[in-house]
Amino acid sequence: PQNLTFSFGLSQVGEFAFVLSNSAREAGILSQESMDTLVAVVALSMVVTPLVMLINDRWIQPRLCDPDKNKPRREHDVESEENPVIIAGFGHFGNTVGRFLRANNIGATVLDTDSDNVDTLRRMGFKVYYGDASRHELLEIAGARQAKLIIIAIGDEEKRLEMIETIKKHFPNLRMLVRATNRNDAYSLMNAGMLHIYRETLDTSIRMGVDAMKLLGFRAHETTRLAKTFFKEDERRLKYLSSIRNADEYVIAIRKYVEELEETLRADRDMLRSGVEEGWDERQMVEERSQAVEEDR
Amino acid sequence: PQNLTFSFGLSQVGEFAFVLSNSAREAGILSQESMDTLVAVVALSMVVTPLVMLINDRWIQPRLCDPDKNKPRREHDVESEENPVIIAGFGHFGNTVGRFLRANNIGATVLDTDSDNVDTLRRMGFKVYYGDASRHELLEIAGARQAKLIIIAIGDEEKRLEMIETIKKHFPNLRMLVRATNRNDAYSLMNAGMLHIYRETLDTSIRMGVDAMKLLGFRAHETTRLAKTFFKEDERRLKYLSSIRNADEYVIAIRKYVEELEETLRADRDMLRSGVEEGWDERQMVEERSQAVEEDR
Repeated sequence: PQNLTFSFGLSQVGEFAFVLSNSAREAGILSQESMDTLVAVVALSMVVTPLVMLINDRWIQPRLCDPDKNKPRREHDVESEENPVIIAGFGHFGNTVGRFLRANNIGATVLDTDSDNVDTLRRMGFKVYYGDASRHELLEIAGARQAKLIIIAIGDEEKRLEMIETIKKHFPNLRMLVRATNRNDAYSLMNAGMLHIYRETLDTSIRMGVDAMKLLGFRAHETTRLAKTFFKEDERRLKYLSSIRNADEYVIAIRKYVEELEETLRADRDMLRSGVEEGWDERQMVEERSQAVEEDR
Repeated sequence: PQNLTFSFGLSQVGEFAFVLSNSAREAGILSQESMDTLVAVVALSMVVTPLVMLINDRWIQPRLCDPDKNKPRREHDVESEENPVIIAGFGHFGNTVGRFLRANNIGATVLDTDSDNVDTLRRMGFKVYYGDASRHELLEIAGARQAKLIIIAIGDEEKRLEMIETIKKHFPNLRMLVRATNRNDAYSLMNAGMLHIYRETLDTSIRMGVDAMKLLGFRAHETTRLAKTFFKEDERRLKYLSSIRNADEYVIAIRKYVEELEETLRADRDMLRSGVEEGWDERQMVEERSQAVEEDR
């Protein structure tokens, strides 16, 4: 693109001819008539150059740089399959869900719009269709009418919301499980009526917190239990927080929520510890211990 | 930036004066001497214009568009704290880890380079320092010499690798827990010698798979158990797969791995089911059931 700008810019250099032509006329090489024509041509080119550059910037370069914008690089190849699950988006998120389902013998029809990704995955032995799952006719072909649920695993927030509206309208019986970028995106998805929302880094970041505590010497089963409480509380509050529209109110609500969460976990910790000290009933102890062993494995 | 390009481009319009001045000379308004000076000035401006535009494109605009690149917008405000944990990066990933630790009464010194994020978080009651945790002198101030571990939760892959090298060099005793974007990024981190790697969407995508199975009618404790096997196997193979450099070999290895994973989970499922049918010993049954109840809650 840089080169192209320069090529167009070069037409400006033509004007340099004007300077030369003037000297030429003075030396008697060019007649007054030829000179007049030349002046007109050069003057015109000076007016046209910025226009050509503008056209280049606005219409030509955007198409060269992003050919996908105006037409898809290839036709969809979605085929009819009678699977109970449709997966929209097979990047690292959708891919993991897909592998887990497949490993459990559950059929899933997979759609992805990244042409290179589709090819790579096929070479790796995955059955992936090239096609945009936000187009209702492709969802129809993919079997959205027979399927029980759709995994919306694409990374683009806007596109996800579009897809949800399409599905609500055309396939009201299809259950949606939706990936969310973060807390704010989860609020948007809640407001779009979604019930199954998965904040993409939530679980892993909690696991990291658990491991940090273990490295600091905390007991495995205690931290795992605290993590479960943390997770449940965080999900529970999400709905309430999503209803707050006012920014100042939101800040106050978050402050309050964080304090309450600390309080809840403190109570949980105290209970766990006093329980162990005073001696729990045996079955509970055995259970706790075997769980901890399993989690450590 | 678009406007700026145009402003510089406008100097070209000055040349139009040349055309006019020529007419002026012919009408006897300008002397030959003035005309010569004018030609020289205009010719010079014609040569200079493209240079000015080039300088603008290469040096001026990049600085205007990305002021962070050459100097930070504000000075760091990191203070000395004697916390066992340092958290680098407090976006939605680091924030969750931080909230979990804080809720468990574990002190963490938090550094973030996003000025707006720092301000927002402070208003929400979080103690966050503005400062780049890849600068060893800031890590020093933050207490990297006394701390037990650092949570590397920033989103930028390159920057993470830089940070790791800095820590290895200056704080060899500081344990690192690192966020990874995906499988490929995890390979890079393994090759950098990291032991605690957390693929950011791994756990949540598996949870989504578990919930999908539950919605399809599978039993909660069965799917949860399968998810644990899936997770463990996936993490176990990561190390082996990271050692493969050849692209074709990698494709073959992935194919084989996916098949083996399916085999492992199939065996797990069969065992679970036959176990239930043939009647397990009572304690195991009770344990399974109580676990399942807890997970459903």
